[in-house]
Amino acid sequence: MPHTVPDEDAARRARFRPASGLESPRFSGAATFMRLQAADPAAGGIEIGLFGIPFDGATTGRPGARLGPRAVRDASTGTRQVNAATGVAPYDFAACADLGDVPVNPIDAAETCRRIEAFSRGLVERGVVPLAVGGDHLVSYPLLRAVGRSGPVGLIHIDAHSDTDDGQYGGTRLTHGTPFRRAVEDGVLDPRRCVQIGLRGSVDALDELDWARAQGIRIVPMDEAVARGLPEVVAEARAVVGGAPAYLSFDIDALDPAFAPGTGTPEIGGFSSREALHLLRGLRGLDLVGGDLVEVAPSLDPTGATAMAGGQLLFEILCLLAEAADARRR
Amino acid sequence: MPHTVPDEDAARRARFRPASGLESPRFSGAATFMRLQAADPAAGGIEIGLFGIPFDGATTGRPGARLGPRAVRDASTGTRQVNAATGVAPYDFAACADLGDVPVNPIDAAETCRRIEAFSRGLVERGVVPLAVGGDHLVSYPLLRAVGRSGPVGLIHIDAHSDTDDGQYGGTRLTHGTPFRRAVEDGVLDPRRCVQIGLRGSVDALDELDWARAQGIRIVPMDEAVARGLPEVVAEARAVVGGAPAYLSFDIDALDPAFAPGTGTPEIGGFSSREALHLLRGLRGLDLVGGDLVEVAPSLDPTGATAMAGGQLLFEILCLLAEAADARRR
Amino acid sequence: MPHTVPDEDAARRARFRPASGLESPRFSGAATFMRLQAADPAAGGIEIGLFGIPFDGATTGRPGARLGPRAVRDASTGTRQVNAATGVAPYDFAACADLGDVPVNPIDAAETCRRIEAFSRGLVERGVVPLAVGGDHLVSYPLLRAVGRSGPVGLIHIDAHSDTDDGQYGGTRLTHGTPFRRAVEDGVLDPRRCVQIGLRGSVDALDELDWARAQGIRIVPMDEAVARGLPEVVAEARAVVGGAPAYLSFDIDALDPAFAPGTGTPEIGGFSSREALHLLRGLRGLDLVGGDLVEVAPSLDPTGATAMAGGQLLFEILCLLAEAADARRR
Amino acid sequence: MPHTVPDEDAARRARFRPASGLESPRFSGAATFMRLQAADPAAGGIEIGLFGIPFDGATTGRPGARLGPRAVRDASTGTRQVNAATGVAPYDFAACADLGDVPVNPIDAAETCRRIEAFSRGLVERGVVPLAVGGDHLVSYPLLRAVGRSGPVGLIHIDAHSDTDDGQYGGTRLTHGTPFRRAVEDGVLDPRRCVQIGLRGSVDALDELDWARAQGIRIVPMDEAVARGLPEVVAEARAVVGGAPAYLSFDIDALDPAFAPGTGTPEIGGFSSREALHLLRGLRGLDLVGGDLVEVAPSLDPTGATAMAGGQLLFEILCLLAEAADARRR
Amino acid sequence: MPHTVPDEDAARRARFRPASGLESPRFSGAATFMRLQAADPAAGGIEIGLFGIPFDGATTGRPGARLGPRAVRDASTGTRQVNAATGVAPYDFAACADLGDVPVNPIDAAETCRRIEAFSRGLVERGVVPLAVGGDHLVSYPLLRAVGRSGPVGLIHIDAHSDTDDGQYGGTRLTHGTPFRRAVEDGVLDPRRCVQIGLRGSVDALDELDWARAQGIRIVPMDEAVARGLPEVVAEARAVVGGAPAYLSFDIDALDPAFAPGTGTPEIGGFSSREALHLLRGLRGLDLVGGDLVEVAPSLDPTGATAMAGGQLLFEILCLLAEAADARRR
Amino acid sequence: MPHTVPDEDAARRARFRPASGLESPRFSGAATFMRLQAADPAAGGIEIGLFGIPFDGATTGRPGARLGPRAVRDASTGTRQVNAATGVAPYDFAACADLGDVPVNPIDAAETCRRIEAFSRGLVERGVVPLAVGGDHLVSYPLLRAVGRSGPVGLIHIDAHSDTDDGQYGGTRLTHGTPFRRAVEDGVLDPRRCVQIGLRGSVDALDELDWARAQGIRIVPMDEAVARGLPEVVAEARAVVGGAPAYLSFDIDALDPAFAPGTGTPEIGGFSSREALHLLRGLRGLDLVGGDLVEVAPSLDPTGATAMAGGQLLFEILCLLAEAADARRR
Repeated sequence: MPHTVPDEDAARRARFRPASGLESPRFSGAATFMRLQAADPAAGGIEIGLFGIPFDGATTGRPGARLGPRAVRDASTGTRQVNAATGVAPYDFAACADLGDVPVNPIDAAETCRRIEAFSRGLVERGVVPLAVGGDHLVSYPLLRAVGRSGPVGLIHIDAHSDTDDGQYGGTRLTHGTPFRRAVEDGVLDPRRCVQIGLRGSVDALDELDWARAQGIRIVPMDEAVARGLPEVVAEARAVVGGAPAYLSFDIDALDPAFAPGTGTPEIGGFSSREALHLLRGLRGLDLVGGDLVEVAPSLDPTGATAMAGGQLLFEILCLLAEAADARRR
Repeated sequence: MPHTVPDEDAARRARFRPASGLESPRFSGAATFMRLQAADPAAGGIEIGLFGIPFDGATTGRPGARLGPRAVRDASTGTRQVNAATGVAPYDFAACADLGDVPVNPIDAAETCRRIEAFSRGLVERGVVPLAVGGDHLVSYPLLRAVGRSGPVGLIHIDAHSDTDDGQYGGTRLTHGTPFRRAVEDGVLDPRRCVQIGLRGSVDALDELDWARAQGIRIVPMDEAVARGLPEVVAEARAVVGGAPAYLSFDIDALDPAFAPGTGTPEIGGFSSREALHLLRGLRGLDLVGGDLVEVAPSLDPTGATAMAGGQLLFEILCLLAEAADARRR
Repeated sequence: MPHTVPDEDAARRARFRPASGLESPRFSGAATFMRLQAADPAAGGIEIGLFGIPFDGATTGRPGARLGPRAVRDASTGTRQVNAATGVAPYDFAACADLGDVPVNPIDAAETCRRIEAFSRGLVERGVVPLAVGGDHLVSYPLLRAVGRSGPVGLIHIDAHSDTDDGQYGGTRLTHGTPFRRAVEDGVLDPRRCVQIGLRGSVDALDELDWARAQGIRIVPMDEAVARGLPEVVAEARAVVGGAPAYLSFDIDALDPAFAPGTGTPEIGGFSSREALHLLRGLRGLDLVGGDLVEVAPSLDPTGATAMAGGQLLFEILCLLAEAADARRR
Repeated sequence: MPHTVPDEDAARRARFRPASGLESPRFSGAATFMRLQAADPAAGGIEIGLFGIPFDGATTGRPGARLGPRAVRDASTGTRQVNAATGVAPYDFAACADLGDVPVNPIDAAETCRRIEAFSRGLVERGVVPLAVGGDHLVSYPLLRAVGRSGPVGLIHIDAHSDTDDGQYGGTRLTHGTPFRRAVEDGVLDPRRCVQIGLRGSVDALDELDWARAQGIRIVPMDEAVARGLPEVVAEARAVVGGAPAYLSFDIDALDPAFAPGTGTPEIGGFSSREALHLLRGLRGLDLVGGDLVEVAPSLDPTGATAMAGGQLLFEILCLLAEAADARRR
Repeated sequence: MPHTVPDEDAARRARFRPASGLESPRFSGAATFMRLQAADPAAGGIEIGLFGIPFDGATTGRPGARLGPRAVRDASTGTRQVNAATGVAPYDFAACADLGDVPVNPIDAAETCRRIEAFSRGLVERGVVPLAVGGDHLVSYPLLRAVGRSGPVGLIHIDAHSDTDDGQYGGTRLTHGTPFRRAVEDGVLDPRRCVQIGLRGSVDALDELDWARAQGIRIVPMDEAVARGLPEVVAEARAVVGGAPAYLSFDIDALDPAFAPGTGTPEIGGFSSREALHLLRGLRGLDLVGGDLVEVAPSLDPTGATAMAGGQLLFEILCLLAEAADARRR
Repeated sequence: MPHTVPDEDAARRARFRPASGLESPRFSGAATFMRLQAADPAAGGIEIGLFGIPFDGATTGRPGARLGPRAVRDASTGTRQVNAATGVAPYDFAACADLGDVPVNPIDAAETCRRIEAFSRGLVERGVVPLAVGGDHLVSYPLLRAVGRSGPVGLIHIDAHSDTDDGQYGGTRLTHGTPFRRAVEDGVLDPRRCVQIGLRGSVDALDELDWARAQGIRIVPMDEAVARGLPEVVAEARAVVGGAPAYLSFDIDALDPAFAPGTGTPEIGGFSSREALHLLRGLRGLDLVGGDLVEVAPSLDPTGATAMAGGQLLFEILCLLAEAADARRR
């Protein structure tokens, strides 16, 4: 533990610490995120709340992300106590728990958005940092409404797509291609403190990207990321977001399909998982106040590798949130 | 050809006949249903129109049936010209074509229902018998609205579930568990000429079945079907439906998951494909005016066996519709 | 509810009832058996305790059953409140909970057996009926030691194999091929009240079966079961076991590999899931005091059908145990 | 061993007996058929020679059967020493060995047929009974040329298809749809002692079946087999073939795709593996002089169930050949 | 559109433009390449013709590429209108259509080569640029005979293997390992304007490479490509091919098996899809007159990632061909 | 052949050379490592002995590596005679054979270790270089006891994990997480000549790595390997190991799960197969006296890519051992 923690905090966090794989096999027990305790969303003493949003009713590609939370839960139990690369021991920094799933309506996107927002707002109001596992990318919209309620937040957005469409199919405005446009329109996301990394593939039209750029969103297409190198990308992302509160959204299709075939709209030429780790670890020190990992669709990957990548990336995001929560407290 | 057909009809049907596997490999060519020609829904000369409805936005279980039409198209190209068991050569009885897919909105069930109904009504008005491939089971509702528009039809419904729920999640009334209740309510389905075969598994409550029976729907649970034997079940089904126009709806989860694992809500203890063939072949002579095959979710079955079963059952249904169309014409 | 239950019991059981799929999607939430509450094994008020035993270190074939409990948990959440075939509503009969997993040592079969026995004995002593999900079949041995401690129990054993070997590899006596021999030797299993149904395939030698029959175990090979018909088999099984306490052990490889490919030692020519349902439902009224479902190895079945079958069969076994528990109480 | 065997024969056979799973795990060692010794085709002392024919260049459907021999070898190592259903211990009746694969040319069907015939003829001339694993069904043609060289043989043919086409694609006469027509034409197969069981599905035209029947081949379509019951089918098959030498050809697509999805041209409504076992066991006592198991295409079945079924059915066929070889010797 | 196009051309091209995913879901409709119209190969107004060659009868490894065209069709429907990386909108540059499949004979390589050549020559003669999807790599040979008929062409060949063998199995000269040797021998391919990129793995002997180099073919093994960096490789490839007409052949096994496991002869250490995109985008400006993408064998990849990569790479190749066609016209 | 070999050695080696894919298809024949002859471990004339160790009873994660040897055998038959990248023709340097599998006891880790040690020691005593395919990583411990018996050896260890735990589950000391600690304790492995490359992921605690470093083991975590570049890592590894005898252990989970999903404990961010090739080829010239490739668990990878990578990496290791054996002889 790199710094002094009040004894009562340390004791409380120890009570929330997941079981060690040295004592009991990591494949044992009902699967919760990181083998954490299942807890009621309203329970006291929790600093970071992990939860699932099993909703994919806004997908315009191949569905299946509704099954993501359970698959990521299962895979995430393979993670251990300490991040060997950074030395961060997240459970020393924050009491973490699995808060279950938001009660979605799989057929009604608008109603589900309202429920997600209510669920997340409750956490935020109780001082719990939300870390959600989707579900399709629409879920980021109500999550941003909750974390950006008291003022627009910045955004680190790692994805193959910009998700700033205006709508599809003649007027459908709540799709997994529109969350960040909606969030900007609602004033909960500050576009000038927003960076999107890894965009690539083909597009229906260039309008979507033009709109985003016109708002001030910084887009780093994959080709640019490769050409400039990840260290430079990380530095710019940090500069864009700055020191104010920010949200982190990771779409698993940022990874190349070789690393994450189990997602609805894969685009070749993506990040390797090693590059994704590099990107995430470069975000230490930012004031992250919430995050999500979305679009894991396990049925599309019989090897289970996508959920495995999701679970391990989720651990990295948790490390970031835990460090940030700790920094805010000191 | 067992009876005389006017020359011009025979010639027209020959033009619509799919390519033989003796001349070109059945795995070649872009996949259309049964290797039929792709045709515009409004094209003339077509007697049976096969089309897809790639919509699964009303699924309450595992999604994926939106990918069903393409997978069934591919698998169905393995069928040949003549049904060896019955001797029926459907392409002699009716000019058949692949009319493409209904233009669905994957995120909006109500709008999609309107589009399905409009598409199907157009066919019915032009005298084309609709044979649809889902998609989730909600699609049967607008299809029934189209075929039952001029008067309520009867129904042969082969499925693991009754799909006569009133709604879910506090008031959502358009789900894949409600189509037949909606159709009865709308007066397009005559419950007293309706039989449901193969129901099984667990239920949330007995209300759904009570409602159906109260309407006069004849339910033959799987256990009863097995106990009485399929010949008796077929005989009763024929009696319930009678000689008036009827619709045939086949949910692939009527099959046991061993035969069709690729579906959203499998229930063990289902029909073998052999039993399903027996059931379908027992329906010859009924005045079938439309049909559907639904709930094939190919991503859930990496062997492809579910789509294969779907494609071959679709051929059987096509044989029934072709014979019925021919009978009406004579 | 078919009979009068004291109000306090009904209220308590209602508290333990799992969430309905009409209210929240069955694919949501961290996966516990049947969506039941996770509870401490020592918690009060529980009548039937479901738990996992993620151990496959005694497998002599293909491994993977250690991953069975989680996969069956996930699949079992698809079951609902009421058994449509029998009308049994198990959660009205007994308060049920998911007690987590026995803390196994994946590398040490003897130590794991001790832990399973201790865990199960604790339940039995508190009046909780154990329903375990393996894991390989060795786990039945310590389970039988717990339930048979106060007197040898009878056994309904549905399996492709007799599992009454003396040992393998020059003296290894704790394998998944030996549990019932060990249990008879220890006096916790009464061989004359023991019936094994569904045995088939090839054998290394006939000694194993000879030993079993010499003890008085009634073996019904698959061929005999088919020739005589399941009703007769059920009747005989009931007669063999009689009215005294008995245990039910179901090896998923009793099913044909078409219905359950995900198991270590499949043998063709097995039961269909429909036959398995028939067998299980025929056991209503027996005084069942515990049970297990073993050998689901999900990695060996990318379709997930094996775990799906396991979850639904587990529901049937739960219905039997719930009725029996209720009968004992009245 | 049910009858007296000269000591030297018993000793020789014991030398060829495969390792027992009680001594070393059945999953260990390089995979040969049934864990038998690999032997040179010209080696002495062998009574039944198992070998592979990894050729699928004559497939008109989905390819992959060239990978069948290896997959069946691997799966067959799960079989043990004694057939529990019949009590037959094949390795007591005949010295068996794995003779490797015929040296095929994957691109040249005619050349490969010549090689298969030469390989098989060599065995027949040395008194070794050939038991081949395909490969596509064309391989039966050169095998029949070898075993029928000194006089036409009878045939038990279990399959979904008749494989008596004249040709395809404008004159290609060596395809997996033509072997039995070619064999009849060549006079190595006696059509009046030939029975085909399990035919079903759709056909390009009825000519193929008409030709077969005109030759005197007895066709038992699946529907007839089901209607009359397997005992009657077995009895008729035995009568057709009679007491003279006969060949057994088993196409894995005789099984329903639920039991064997890994094959190029699956047809729903097929045999269960239990029915297949019943059929095969009904052939005891026939003078079988060779056999094959064909069309296992493992890439088409990620569960491995098809190869597993293939390996276990191969054991049943081996039992038949071993009994027949023993009967001829006495 | 970066330059002026005659109005009639623009209008014609607009008629051939595929449907946008903003209007109808990209997963809907029968699958054609890029959702393009299916058209008769002899139809007028087409500038680039995409077609399939479902032939794998010349494969010496694992088969399955005959199923490639359909799988790539399905996957390619996920591509959109504009290449986001390059800004190229191919459907503005050329009228494109799906011309169906060449009518192959799966059992006869020589006959199939003749048919491919005739089909392709027809296109070339009508001024249609051929873009073929295999099938195994032998198909490049007749394609080159068609495009090189009026003079030898250059070649960009991206592959793990040189495919310049002389023959196999004692004289078989038409295999998927020989197309480029045959094309050089026939004078339709100019070896001094030929570059092969990405070769690696083990070889039967060094003769094959020696022959290629002796002809003047420039081979860039994978190790050299990595050591020098892709920009240098691209520059050299451009220099080798020069400004004269050239053909582009992309074997999917150029990709590492992590990116494309679904191919017959994978070799580890291959290109990432990002590198492949880099290579292809480096070829802008070359006078490409035809191309192919071969060796996608979907059955060998249950995740579907290989076909997905194939479909997206095909879009890149289409962009190259469209730009080149446009350049030739101006 | 780059140097003079005595004629009798060349002739002997030629007898052991595997069949060429130019003569017979590489997919034909029972699968042995690299299509080598199966030979008795005690046979004379062999210089490098490849063998399997189908044991995974010490796995603490997902099991299945017991099926690794057969899967790697099958996949390795795709390798050819000459390493195209290095020009090494291993079968010219050493007579190689497939010695079958060590007779393991799947349930008893201690007994299995004794058997592995005895098997390997026999080889070492006869001058045969052992090259083993696991199985889980515990197998390296008895292998090191055999090769380090006459003096501690150095170690190149490529892995995601250090495998220097002291024990798990309250005292279990023989697990796949402990082999190198045990080997150091036994004095058969010289920790100061030991380098571990590619470590990453999360850890239960930092103790394990602290212990290793305290012994003098050089650990190169993945992040350091990437930061410094592989050439520098290779150079340091060579320096650490020096010129004395060393052992090479390659855990397939060193690869990223995109390249090798079929392993029990995957960690994202690993090596690409190209990087692994680079690492291995950098070890030419070291005095390698034995090696292993472990943790391939084929059931966890339905694409087969993991075994494919394993087989091709095994060929690279074989090239290293062959060159080293040749160098020792000269």
